[in-house]
Amino acid sequence: MFFASDNSGPAHPNVMDAMMRANEGYRFGYGADPEMDRVRDMIRDLFQAPEAAVYLVATGTAANSIALATLSEPWQTIFCTKLAHINEDECNAPEFYSGAKLTMVKDENAKMTPDTLRAAMSAEETRGVHGPQRGPVSITQVTEKGTVYTLKELKALTDVAKEFGVATHLDGARFANAIVTLGCTPAEMTWKAGIDCVCFGGTKNGLMGVEAVVFFDPQHAWEFELRRKRGAHLFSKHRYLSAQMEAYLTDNLWHNLATRANAAGQRLADGLRGSNTVTFPYEPEANLMFFEAPRALHKKVQAAGAQYYVMGSLDGDDDEMVLGRLVCDWSVGSDGVDAFLAALKS
Amino acid sequence: MFFASDNSGPAHPNVMDAMMRANEGYRFGYGADPEMDRVRDMIRDLFQAPEAAVYLVATGTAANSIALATLSEPWQTIFCTKLAHINEDECNAPEFYSGAKLTMVKDENAKMTPDTLRAAMSAEETRGVHGPQRGPVSITQVTEKGTVYTLKELKALTDVAKEFGVATHLDGARFANAIVTLGCTPAEMTWKAGIDCVCFGGTKNGLMGVEAVVFFDPQHAWEFELRRKRGAHLFSKHRYLSAQMEAYLTDNLWHNLATRANAAGQRLADGLRGSNTVTFPYEPEANLMFFEAPRALHKKVQAAGAQYYVMGSLDGDDDEMVLGRLVCDWSVGSDGVDAFLAALKS
Amino acid sequence: MFFASDNSGPAHPNVMDAMMRANEGYRFGYGADPEMDRVRDMIRDLFQAPEAAVYLVATGTAANSIALATLSEPWQTIFCTKLAHINEDECNAPEFYSGAKLTMVKDENAKMTPDTLRAAMSAEETRGVHGPQRGPVSITQVTEKGTVYTLKELKALTDVAKEFGVATHLDGARFANAIVTLGCTPAEMTWKAGIDCVCFGGTKNGLMGVEAVVFFDPQHAWEFELRRKRGAHLFSKHRYLSAQMEAYLTDNLWHNLATRANAAGQRLADGLRGSNTVTFPYEPEANLMFFEAPRALHKKVQAAGAQYYVMGSLDGDDDEMVLGRLVCDWSVGSDGVDAFLAALKS
Amino acid sequence: MFFASDNSGPAHPNVMDAMMRANEGYRFGYGADPEMDRVRDMIRDLFQAPEAAVYLVATGTAANSIALATLSEPWQTIFCTKLAHINEDECNAPEFYSGAKLTMVKDENAKMTPDTLRAAMSAEETRGVHGPQRGPVSITQVTEKGTVYTLKELKALTDVAKEFGVATHLDGARFANAIVTLGCTPAEMTWKAGIDCVCFGGTKNGLMGVEAVVFFDPQHAWEFELRRKRGAHLFSKHRYLSAQMEAYLTDNLWHNLATRANAAGQRLADGLRGSNTVTFPYEPEANLMFFEAPRALHKKVQAAGAQYYVMGSLDGDDDEMVLGRLVCDWSVGSDGVDAFLAALKS
Repeated sequence: MFFASDNSGPAHPNVMDAMMRANEGYRFGYGADPEMDRVRDMIRDLFQAPEAAVYLVATGTAANSIALATLSEPWQTIFCTKLAHINEDECNAPEFYSGAKLTMVKDENAKMTPDTLRAAMSAEETRGVHGPQRGPVSITQVTEKGTVYTLKELKALTDVAKEFGVATHLDGARFANAIVTLGCTPAEMTWKAGIDCVCFGGTKNGLMGVEAVVFFDPQHAWEFELRRKRGAHLFSKHRYLSAQMEAYLTDNLWHNLATRANAAGQRLADGLRGSNTVTFPYEPEANLMFFEAPRALHKKVQAAGAQYYVMGSLDGDDDEMVLGRLVCDWSVGSDGVDAFLAALKS
Repeated sequence: MFFASDNSGPAHPNVMDAMMRANEGYRFGYGADPEMDRVRDMIRDLFQAPEAAVYLVATGTAANSIALATLSEPWQTIFCTKLAHINEDECNAPEFYSGAKLTMVKDENAKMTPDTLRAAMSAEETRGVHGPQRGPVSITQVTEKGTVYTLKELKALTDVAKEFGVATHLDGARFANAIVTLGCTPAEMTWKAGIDCVCFGGTKNGLMGVEAVVFFDPQHAWEFELRRKRGAHLFSKHRYLSAQMEAYLTDNLWHNLATRANAAGQRLADGLRGSNTVTFPYEPEANLMFFEAPRALHKKVQAAGAQYYVMGSLDGDDDEMVLGRLVCDWSVGSDGVDAFLAALKS
Repeated sequence: MFFASDNSGPAHPNVMDAMMRANEGYRFGYGADPEMDRVRDMIRDLFQAPEAAVYLVATGTAANSIALATLSEPWQTIFCTKLAHINEDECNAPEFYSGAKLTMVKDENAKMTPDTLRAAMSAEETRGVHGPQRGPVSITQVTEKGTVYTLKELKALTDVAKEFGVATHLDGARFANAIVTLGCTPAEMTWKAGIDCVCFGGTKNGLMGVEAVVFFDPQHAWEFELRRKRGAHLFSKHRYLSAQMEAYLTDNLWHNLATRANAAGQRLADGLRGSNTVTFPYEPEANLMFFEAPRALHKKVQAAGAQYYVMGSLDGDDDEMVLGRLVCDWSVGSDGVDAFLAALKS
Repeated sequence: MFFASDNSGPAHPNVMDAMMRANEGYRFGYGADPEMDRVRDMIRDLFQAPEAAVYLVATGTAANSIALATLSEPWQTIFCTKLAHINEDECNAPEFYSGAKLTMVKDENAKMTPDTLRAAMSAEETRGVHGPQRGPVSITQVTEKGTVYTLKELKALTDVAKEFGVATHLDGARFANAIVTLGCTPAEMTWKAGIDCVCFGGTKNGLMGVEAVVFFDPQHAWEFELRRKRGAHLFSKHRYLSAQMEAYLTDNLWHNLATRANAAGQRLADGLRGSNTVTFPYEPEANLMFFEAPRALHKKVQAAGAQYYVMGSLDGDDDEMVLGRLVCDWSVGSDGVDAFLAALKS
């Protein structure tokens, strides 16, 4: 009953096997491994983007920060919601890498809308050199609150970005989960929807720690490589990143794992909906959800062994509503969910 | 016959086994894994430094850059040799993280001396606010050219640093190899010799990609943690870093692997010494060496399958002396060395 | 009829005379001029702060940015309103100098309140290393919209900052105007109200281009000096900055000029209040004001020669309400104001 | 007898008069003053560069740092001599603004040579992403030691830069003095010699504090403007910078003042040559010089009232040779020089 994060569970056995296979013989380092050649081709195929520049890094924060630095200039501002991981959870890494600042776009259901985005970009009237200049838009899919942008919503946002002549970045830490929710292709959720650069996450979906950064316009390739090295994110023994990603891309593992995670998430959401004391501030559309429940309920399920984050203290009035967050990773399975729901109902 | 780098070979099986064992069940992320608790204790024991702050990162450049940023201020200059990895091979990462600049200290046999260090630090007369202020000294052990500072030499350098009131950082990408060469303890080669912070390398010595950063004065701990996160180098699934390091520290694996690598290196150096056309610009004291040999010789051994870096072209006058670099990792073994030497002599 | 900005008018004759006097003979540079020694003493006297560290720079953006960099760390966030000059009008200079980011505090009447400040600081729950850490609070007095914090309001805000253990910076680009409005002393409006550092503006109040930065705790002195030099803001011929500031401090010139500017501002505001088509979105409490008026009115007074900024186009429906900004500098006088009001009424 | 620096003397009366004239009426700020329009035209005429982008800042460090930041990328290295002001006297400002590092080019007679430049640029073999990438070359003219590059020497250096595909920046803090020495035109000493960007100094030659930055290729214009603002170096009351520069350009004042300064410098050098105890480590070719003389001589002239910097202590063996630096500004005149020489001989 571990629902604290989708970075809490184990890596998938296929990934470990691939690491083992990669651990034979000698390789030139720094991305010159043959595994990376295969990964590059597989990602280009997956995204139907034969020209795309493809790179691997080991953390999601690195992927986002180096990608955004490549798309922006230090006198610009990057548009995102207040809830964005790049705003709340990366300890100024995006600002450190880019030199740019972040401007908050109002969210509805944890998503920016064309109207709130346009309002923020218009308000950021730059008055020549005085204000920060408009830089890229960064969208998180699945959002940090568990909702998912539809393809139409994504397209409407990238259209606004294009109006202002700036690029759009997709923080896809839970990219696979969103693909499963939408039932679409990676191309449809990225460049066909106007996205210029995607961080295609693997760490939260069964890898040990690998994210791919994909630029659909390869003009950004060399700058990204230099920024990655300067940020100390180029691995000498790069084969171990490549091997993980190769396993992820083989036999649709990435999709299968997200399918499991989302199924667990939906089973859990359905179960919670059955409890008349639980409410969802955001509609759970993938594998994570926030829920409000009486403190007594949180105490009960945690006492039964469930692990997850509660926003606030477990000490206090039993009837008071307290917010919790539940995340299902690929490994939690229906048994884990059912155990949680049983503890809830007991 | 792969001598291109000590980051070219496989990780040791014990390390892979540890990864497998770590890949079970759930863990809280970001360094809160129980493996890390054990690693911290083991490193404190190893260094006889019960108060030390201990952190893991995945690349040597990250270890050096974040450590130096923690020890310096952006208006300072860091003292190192021109050959230093932080100067030549990190694409401005140390400057990016610290904001400081680097000042070159003249090297003799690839090492700074108390005289050249004092000369550089004195020349860097700061004239109040005008010049860069003096910042930490960074020493690489094993040096980038394969020589090793004696304990006395290290102490003499840290004494100069102390005269000027600045800290000393040890880039220990090949820390274990130096320990084997000197036959001393980690404490003797670090804090007992006046070192304030060491990057204790694992990647070049049988790990997949882990370096420990150790501050003997724990006052730097929290700043390092924030800089690591801001640099995007804090791993969510941190257990996989911890597991590698734990295996490395268990049963003296770190020492055993370096012993093997150094033995191979010395066997190789001895063999090369037997060839009357080969000279060493720097005395090979650990597991890597630079050697000058006629172009024809390089061509012959490379044609026989040896892989290593040649500084310059293989096209040209057969008799011209050309510089090559050979590095033995833990896995190359006496067979690999003997195959190389056989090719040399054939 | 020039109301575009208080940086549009001439410097006061006393200031020019002081420049002339300073332009004799030789001086050591970089702040070692005897004029600066006098300025330091005069500012310490003025602020009743005999230990204060006092520095001069030539632009308000430099004053704010270097001061905030000195008070913060690059992994922190600085709290200010969305309207703050440091947020809207400095093209990322505060972020460039500090490395920190800015977090928006909700404003009421262009001021933060203890409640909105506490809400922003509490929301910035840092979760260990994940989120930006809490850094200094930056308050603008007179606010960017022409309102003035009372001493009690300032104290309440610095009390909140102290609760969270962070420093408070006062952007005093219009410091003198606020002093005139409140009828208090500089000490009362700064350290007695809990302010740690003030940018004491001169450029908008009759100087050519000088701002003093005052740290009430001199521990920050040396760091500020290094940051100023590193930012290229240390003047070699520093005497010309000192001379301006000395003139400003002599015979209460700073106070007299602000008294004139505020009087003009209030005369203008009173006149506008008399027009039943004009409204003030913010109460004009010093020398600048925003006012809403029908487009036809803006067109009429601008056609009559009044110069000021209109937020939006002068083309369009005559009846539509359009926002304008009027600023009175020390030189505009009652004649200028009356000419404007006459044009308004004509 | 004030020879400490050419930033120690007064501004020229024409400059003060121009400031007075500029101090009338109202102006839009931030470079939109009509004085600046005239200055831009005058500089374009002076440099025979009708398309050039022209900007003013108040310090030489700002001019150099923002210019170099505009010409470089943060993963590059800038080539200069160890003696360069940007290396020794700007407290990391060039690194702060650009993110780039500096690589030292060996100097002969305080100048880089085509050979030493090519050697430094070749040594900076970048090995893909590993090393810093090659960035602009920065040349100081007059050099920091008082020597002057010939036009042919400049051209030979910019040719090397062009071989490597990088831009060349001229630190012209004493630009006018070099022009006087060479008897050439500003165009000949800049773009005709292959220079891409020049900092045309005024502060050391009779202004209060203004430097012009000139890019011969206007593609850099907007980036420079943003970097200037972000660096807090855009003046609101810009007219006072423009007015100084306008006076400087009117009636060849810039050239006349440098002619005076150089004449004084040469008179002083000639006088020193007459003393058989004085030697010049660098040939004095403009208005500043370093000289070695017995300590007793330094003590004698300083006791007589001469003010200048001595590199080392005045306490010690009278016969020991001690280095001193003498700089003649426009105002020192032959009387000042003769007084110094008389003290020397007495």
